[in-house]
Amino acid sequence: MRIIDPTEDELRRSLSLKWGTVDPDVIPAWVAEMDFPTAPAVTQALADAVARGELGYPSFDYERIGEAYAGFARRHFDQRVDPSQVLPVVDVTAGVRFALDVLSDPAPVVLPTPAYHPQFGVVPVTGREVWELPVPPDAERGMFDLDRLDHLFSRGARTLLLTQPHNPLGHVHTRAELEAIRDVVVRHGARVISDEIHAPLVLPGARHVPYLSLDGTADHAVAVVAASKAFNTAGLRCGQVVTDDPATRDRLLEAPAVRNSSWSNLGEIAAIAAYTDGDAWLAALVERLDRQRTLLGELLAEHLPEARMRPLEATYLPWLDLRAYGADDPADVALTKGRVRLEPGHRYQHDLTGHLRLNIATSPERLAEIVRRIAAALDG
Amino acid sequence: MRIIDPTEDELRRSLSLKWGTVDPDVIPAWVAEMDFPTAPAVTQALADAVARGELGYPSFDYERIGEAYAGFARRHFDQRVDPSQVLPVVDVTAGVRFALDVLSDPAPVVLPTPAYHPQFGVVPVTGREVWELPVPPDAERGMFDLDRLDHLFSRGARTLLLTQPHNPLGHVHTRAELEAIRDVVVRHGARVISDEIHAPLVLPGARHVPYLSLDGTADHAVAVVAASKAFNTAGLRCGQVVTDDPATRDRLLEAPAVRNSSWSNLGEIAAIAAYTDGDAWLAALVERLDRQRTLLGELLAEHLPEARMRPLEATYLPWLDLRAYGADDPADVALTKGRVRLEPGHRYQHDLTGHLRLNIATSPERLAEIVRRIAAALDG
Ligand SMILES: Cc1ncc(COP(=O)(O)O)c(C=O)c1O
Ligand SMILES: Cc1ncc(COP(=O)(O)O)c(C=O)c1O
Repeated sequence: MRIIDPTEDELRRSLSLKWGTVDPDVIPAWVAEMDFPTAPAVTQALADAVARGELGYPSFDYERIGEAYAGFARRHFDQRVDPSQVLPVVDVTAGVRFALDVLSDPAPVVLPTPAYHPQFGVVPVTGREVWELPVPPDAERGMFDLDRLDHLFSRGARTLLLTQPHNPLGHVHTRAELEAIRDVVVRHGARVISDEIHAPLVLPGARHVPYLSLDGTADHAVAVVAASKAFNTAGLRCGQVVTDDPATRDRLLEAPAVRNSSWSNLGEIAAIAAYTDGDAWLAALVERLDRQRTLLGELLAEHLPEARMRPLEATYLPWLDLRAYGADDPADVALTKGRVRLEPGHRYQHDLTGHLRLNIATSPERLAEIVRRIAAALDG
Repeated sequence: MRIIDPTEDELRRSLSLKWGTVDPDVIPAWVAEMDFPTAPAVTQALADAVARGELGYPSFDYERIGEAYAGFARRHFDQRVDPSQVLPVVDVTAGVRFALDVLSDPAPVVLPTPAYHPQFGVVPVTGREVWELPVPPDAERGMFDLDRLDHLFSRGARTLLLTQPHNPLGHVHTRAELEAIRDVVVRHGARVISDEIHAPLVLPGARHVPYLSLDGTADHAVAVVAASKAFNTAGLRCGQVVTDDPATRDRLLEAPAVRNSSWSNLGEIAAIAAYTDGDAWLAALVERLDRQRTLLGELLAEHLPEARMRPLEATYLPWLDLRAYGADDPADVALTKGRVRLEPGHRYQHDLTGHLRLNIATSPERLAEIVRRIAAALDG
């Protein structure tokens, strides 16, 4: 299975947001989309569905997507998922909103930071406060402080919004870390919403442990997952909420339909194809991302030797500490002087300076050019 | 342009909800989907987008969809829409939720009934009460009482959720009716959310007047529209909120992204194609629906002479009063004894007996069979 590198023109036509909204001289390495077409199995399933005219409401029969995800989880994470415990949602952020609205006590939500920025917005929309739990930029590991989590629960927080694997830290939580999180949560009778959208993108060296695969989590946790990030189909709109406990699932099913009825039929078809027939392509993708990770290490050593990068255990979105180069907002400098669009660190952690998030899911040549441009911009 | 009638097997494969969830011996005439494939222009646009790999996030640049809708509104409704006042939303129900959440005072919402049933659910999800304004089954016209509307606003309601053309009554509001509604709304400084999803489906004899085309509505109203009902693409997930006032638009744009970021890229592409290149197909569709309406009149006269049907001025969803036949729930009788799935009237108006909603967007032969089956079931 081959990962294809389209031309710039093709990318401009296919990725409306990532490529379609930047100036022609800018290389986009910002939003979490990959410069690769999706798996052939997904394209084929979509083309067939369009040809068949399968454009109507989804059936609201969750069996096929449940079976598809259960198979994927078994093969990739060695996790037993009951197919009847998988509910489609329109996307992951909407799935988090849905779970918060329906399942969580009306009380503050702990959000470890840096955090995927829409997570700051989704919590207040449900009427809850965000209580941030910062991982300091100089922390040893990309893991938040458990005593601090304990303290926030003591003060009244009732939900942890966990992201694992983590974007933007690239951290894959170990089983021991997850068990320690669980123990704090259980002590307080709190809830976990585990955003595991990046789980299929764990790179060699790490292993994804689904939070729900731990003992004693079924009654207090849901996972929100999707094929859309790994298979590069973010515009198709179908994520999934995974539960491991009929009572939780039933609370979600009994919620007013308007809270969760907007996923797309084509998104569901794409997800089923990805989960069912996407393994070979996904393996090739992970191999490519692993090579890009190695290449990035070499490029940084050569061009940005003072950069500190968190170990990229998953995702294609490395988190770079460029404080040594002096710019408060290196992403802004890189855009202005280097014509590379990156994600500024302060979008992910308030008041953070000197950090940015890069996107390495592109060709080796373009990645090299991106790093050279950042280096030249910060040097100048 | 030809409206195609697929085989039953094809329909079972393409319409996952309408056909895919009923027993093989049941004729589905319930949910608002048509037994016709969408316009060739839409299919082609989708096939091209899939081939090009256009599966990523939409660009959040509203220009193209705005231009497309503005052209459609000009040609079909003689309405001037500023393209920059058109915002995509994931679907119409979600658009109503979005508008309520962001624009409406936290106060009760008037919902004329019978009403499209998810409208009963969307209001409470925003934390507001529904105050129903029933059109009695024996009312002369399918229009609610304005004194009663006035009274409800006096008592504290702040928003009218208007559906026009109306589902399930099939009523197209005249300009005079809309002006009278507007006058009551303005007197109370209230708001209107106008669900106009069925506007492209106005049948010969009536004419759609967009609520926003009336003077003095721009500052208190939005319309929620979509190509999805007329073009039979409900699973693609892209509706639009239309405003006519920059301040209103800006309040929507400034809302947290999570309130409105889930429309599908393919849905947007389909909507643009439908609005831009769909006129000839839509004209053929309306002609077919008009013929089906005539045929239904003949079939009712022959097989269900005691049925009373509201004038079907728009939509393909006639509202039948079958009280003369004695069954409290004629849809249930028709399903059980006649093996036709219809929509029971009480889903649209609480405690209503003897009514049902039919779906005539099918082949003439199937419509004839549907009416014969209903008649035989009610007779037996
Ligand atoms: C952690 C995380 N959650 C959710 C999302 C977005 O998912 P969706 O587009 O399905 O809301 C992303 C996208 O990058 C992400 O990194
Ligand atoms: C009046 C009305 N509004 C909204 C909808 C549904 O629209 P959507 O699927 O975009 O929420 C329908 C569907 O039949 C409808 O009749």
